[in-house]
Amino acid sequence: MQQPITGKQLIGFSEISAGQETFQSINPATGEANPWHFSEATSGEIDQAVGLAARSFEAYSRTPGNRRAAFLHTIADQLESDRKSLVAVYMQESGLPEGRANGELGRTTAQLRSFAELVDEGSWVQARIDTAQSDREPLPKPDIRKCLMPLGPVVVFGASNFPFAFSTAGGDTASALAAGCPVVVKGHPMHPATGELVARAVIQAVRKSKMPEGVFSYLQGTSRSLGEQLVKHPCIAAAGFTGSRAGGLALSAIAAGREVPIPFFAEMGSVNPVVLLPTALDPKAGWAKSYAGSVTLGVGQFCTNPGLLFGIEGPGLDRFGKALAGEVAAIPPACMLHPNMAGNFMEMRNALGQQPGVRYLTSDDPPAGTNEVPATVAVVGGSDFTGNPKLQQEVFGPFTLLVSCRDVQELESALVSLEGQLTASVLGTEEEFRNHPGVLDKLRSKAGRILFNGVPTGVEVCPSMHHGGPFPATTDSRYTSVGTDAILRWVRPLSFQNCPQSLLPEVLRNTNPGGVWRLVDGTWSDESIITL
Amino acid sequence: MQQPITGKQLIGFSEISAGQETFQSINPATGEANPWHFSEATSGEIDQAVGLAARSFEAYSRTPGNRRAAFLHTIADQLESDRKSLVAVYMQESGLPEGRANGELGRTTAQLRSFAELVDEGSWVQARIDTAQSDREPLPKPDIRKCLMPLGPVVVFGASNFPFAFSTAGGDTASALAAGCPVVVKGHPMHPATGELVARAVIQAVRKSKMPEGVFSYLQGTSRSLGEQLVKHPCIAAAGFTGSRAGGLALSAIAAGREVPIPFFAEMGSVNPVVLLPTALDPKAGWAKSYAGSVTLGVGQFCTNPGLLFGIEGPGLDRFGKALAGEVAAIPPACMLHPNMAGNFMEMRNALGQQPGVRYLTSDDPPAGTNEVPATVAVVGGSDFTGNPKLQQEVFGPFTLLVSCRDVQELESALVSLEGQLTASVLGTEEEFRNHPGVLDKLRSKAGRILFNGVPTGVEVCPSMHHGGPFPATTDSRYTSVGTDAILRWVRPLSFQNCPQSLLPEVLRNTNPGGVWRLVDGTWSDESIITL
Repeated sequence: MQQPITGKQLIGFSEISAGQETFQSINPATGEANPWHFSEATSGEIDQAVGLAARSFEAYSRTPGNRRAAFLHTIADQLESDRKSLVAVYMQESGLPEGRANGELGRTTAQLRSFAELVDEGSWVQARIDTAQSDREPLPKPDIRKCLMPLGPVVVFGASNFPFAFSTAGGDTASALAAGCPVVVKGHPMHPATGELVARAVIQAVRKSKMPEGVFSYLQGTSRSLGEQLVKHPCIAAAGFTGSRAGGLALSAIAAGREVPIPFFAEMGSVNPVVLLPTALDPKAGWAKSYAGSVTLGVGQFCTNPGLLFGIEGPGLDRFGKALAGEVAAIPPACMLHPNMAGNFMEMRNALGQQPGVRYLTSDDPPAGTNEVPATVAVVGGSDFTGNPKLQQEVFGPFTLLVSCRDVQELESALVSLEGQLTASVLGTEEEFRNHPGVLDKLRSKAGRILFNGVPTGVEVCPSMHHGGPFPATTDSRYTSVGTDAILRWVRPLSFQNCPQSLLPEVLRNTNPGGVWRLVDGTWSDESIITL
Repeated sequence: MQQPITGKQLIGFSEISAGQETFQSINPATGEANPWHFSEATSGEIDQAVGLAARSFEAYSRTPGNRRAAFLHTIADQLESDRKSLVAVYMQESGLPEGRANGELGRTTAQLRSFAELVDEGSWVQARIDTAQSDREPLPKPDIRKCLMPLGPVVVFGASNFPFAFSTAGGDTASALAAGCPVVVKGHPMHPATGELVARAVIQAVRKSKMPEGVFSYLQGTSRSLGEQLVKHPCIAAAGFTGSRAGGLALSAIAAGREVPIPFFAEMGSVNPVVLLPTALDPKAGWAKSYAGSVTLGVGQFCTNPGLLFGIEGPGLDRFGKALAGEVAAIPPACMLHPNMAGNFMEMRNALGQQPGVRYLTSDDPPAGTNEVPATVAVVGGSDFTGNPKLQQEVFGPFTLLVSCRDVQELESALVSLEGQLTASVLGTEEEFRNHPGVLDKLRSKAGRILFNGVPTGVEVCPSMHHGGPFPATTDSRYTSVGTDAILRWVRPLSFQNCPQSLLPEVLRNTNPGGVWRLVDGTWSDESIITL
């Protein structure tokens, strides 16, 4: 059934639009406004959504893992059954092609299902049990048991560049719901219709799964104050954000400055440095083509887009730069997500082109299509790069800067000057890696993920993924926003001392019917505890 | 061999006192200054200590777990062999009795050895391995492996109330060294001689274990600016603090306001509410005596001291209050750690006594001894308590306030009004616990550890311990400062994608000689990975 798009706030099971102000999204492929009008959320609506989330917390936080798993699967099922209308609206609001829309929806449902499996299995709560020793000298040892417990209602900020996978029912929402936290989503104003349809799917799943009303709400708006009010709200316990550094830092400061500070997880992008060791310059290695694909993937609008390439100067690097520029130029242009993004790209790209020592290897001619931009490869010398922080600013879009270093020492100095990054990559042979320990050390200290002979775009969803990194790539390098460990952002440990079995969370009881892995008296075990 | 006390900074293997200013510690039992003079650390000395720590990081962070374990055991051995002189100086600077000194030293060495065992075993790094699937459609799956890696040099602030266990070689230092982070200790100025002797023991262990110079340094000082400079230093990656809320919040704001913010873990104390359900008031249950012991243990100078008791009004609670006051009065007074602490205690206690509805159940007569204070039980009605935040301020010392509530509803309202706490306790029968779900819910939401029929003092060192709690008990409810999980404060995850085996951290390689527990392709395993 085709869902209507009403432009209202979806608060628990109600649809409300108390505010007078409205906004529209734009079809970036045509530059025209889309037909729907969305109501800006009011302060009263914010209070209502957060209040309902807070009231649902006690019941929702106690739902057993298998029920939360079923709920997450139901959301995924609902999204899949709405695929046709979701993909159509997604394309209309993002200008991205159908293949990407379908792929991203698949990623979104896969994320939901992976968190479902995680909480169904149950070992993620890091249960630790130390049983009593009543005869210990000089003092008896109490029985202590600990596991992770949900923090409370979470605010999720939709991202501009992933209308499905990092937005309304994306990784932040999936992981928070999996942890047992109600979620209030602040939709991204570039794709409000996509957000509304996804939110309706989630709310249908709330009903079908008989979860408490308010465990999910969706608010629309373009104003800064909407996000600020959400983060300031005393009932909000944590927030997740993917977006610009300015936005992330502003909201992070609000979270830290509250009377009771809360964790605020912002993923604020990265230039994802790549080091080309000599053998990687060999045309037969094919890296120019792979990197052209990575730089232009999704019109460069990925936080793992490789914005900086480092190599040692010489004919090999010159040839590589030309090949990369040629490969980039050969990829058909496509529109960016929004006229503002295309405008920002051109401004940043042009400003970088005017920095000392920078020159373009690609043509300056702008493509003809609406919101299309010239995919750009630029080059600069290592000495010009190091010490000019403007050259490591993220140019959001299809842009990469090749840094030509005099020697390994200049290359290492350039790496030392880098800010914190989501990823860092190195291309070469194993022998070359071993012969450049300084390069590897520098990359390790700067990034959350190190890639060997690969492109940073394409973030696998799995337990070993760390999609995070030292500040300013994120506000907290200890947490990931992709992969099952993303659930750890929404919990805190709670110890129970001498607690009667019947009052313990199920995962801490002696019986262990689910075979959860627990650290029992210092030993890992998936067995139950036998008492005499 | 008796160690000299020089009053200098111990920076790596050097002893330096460049500064002109000095200070002395006080023997609280006599009120007299101790004989030694300690040099205030200068900015140059701070730079030197942190610089040396930063230079030692690369080598130290790569030491295998078994070598770090041996180093921690050597520190513990050295402290044990210095026991006699350590205990004598500890008593001279703290006024605490010999039994406590010996017990706390035992706790300190046990902590060091428990982190040694943790890193020797190795599973604490949360290794996750997802192996490659080159034939996966539509895209091949890369090999990704992740584990926890040390953050960098850590500052540890010594605590006033645990000269051994939460200071120079206490839990923060032990856990940071175990994680692979160099440590710079800012000693607490109330026990600088104890700190110096402990620091010498650590530095002897650094030499014996052939660890890099600078992996441990010890700085003395009384000024705020010393701590502030340390937290601001660009080479410092994290800090641990146990102390007052004012101090913790000030340093925490500095850590958050840095150009690159760093994790700052402050444990800022707590009033540790205790709820007495009706059967607990029965004199035969003996809780008056147990709680008198807990309130006065260590002259009440514990962060888990039970400062608030809640009960339902009636003859049972009146009788309990009198019994508690009698038991408290029967315990011989002892001196507090410092004249300032005794002064603060009297000021806070007297100010609380003047709040509406508060009256003392114990005598007002001050004890005769130097720096001794009157252990105090006060009582107030539930309606006076709720809504008067002054009544939940921590009175650091032997003080507890009994809150007499009209009924369970008033009791629950009082609990809702509480700030975040390290612990919360409930006394009664299992049936009573089950009949008071609201009480248990409120306590769970406020604390990091819930105790059933116990006293909160006595913090077991074990994997299941959570010594932390919602703000303002700590700055970050997700981390503990006691127990093996305290190591998680000093690390961040790092993912390796398609990394050659020889360049992986040992714990992520296919061979798994130590039998470390790892999550391999979604399954927990302590085996090695067999490749074809």
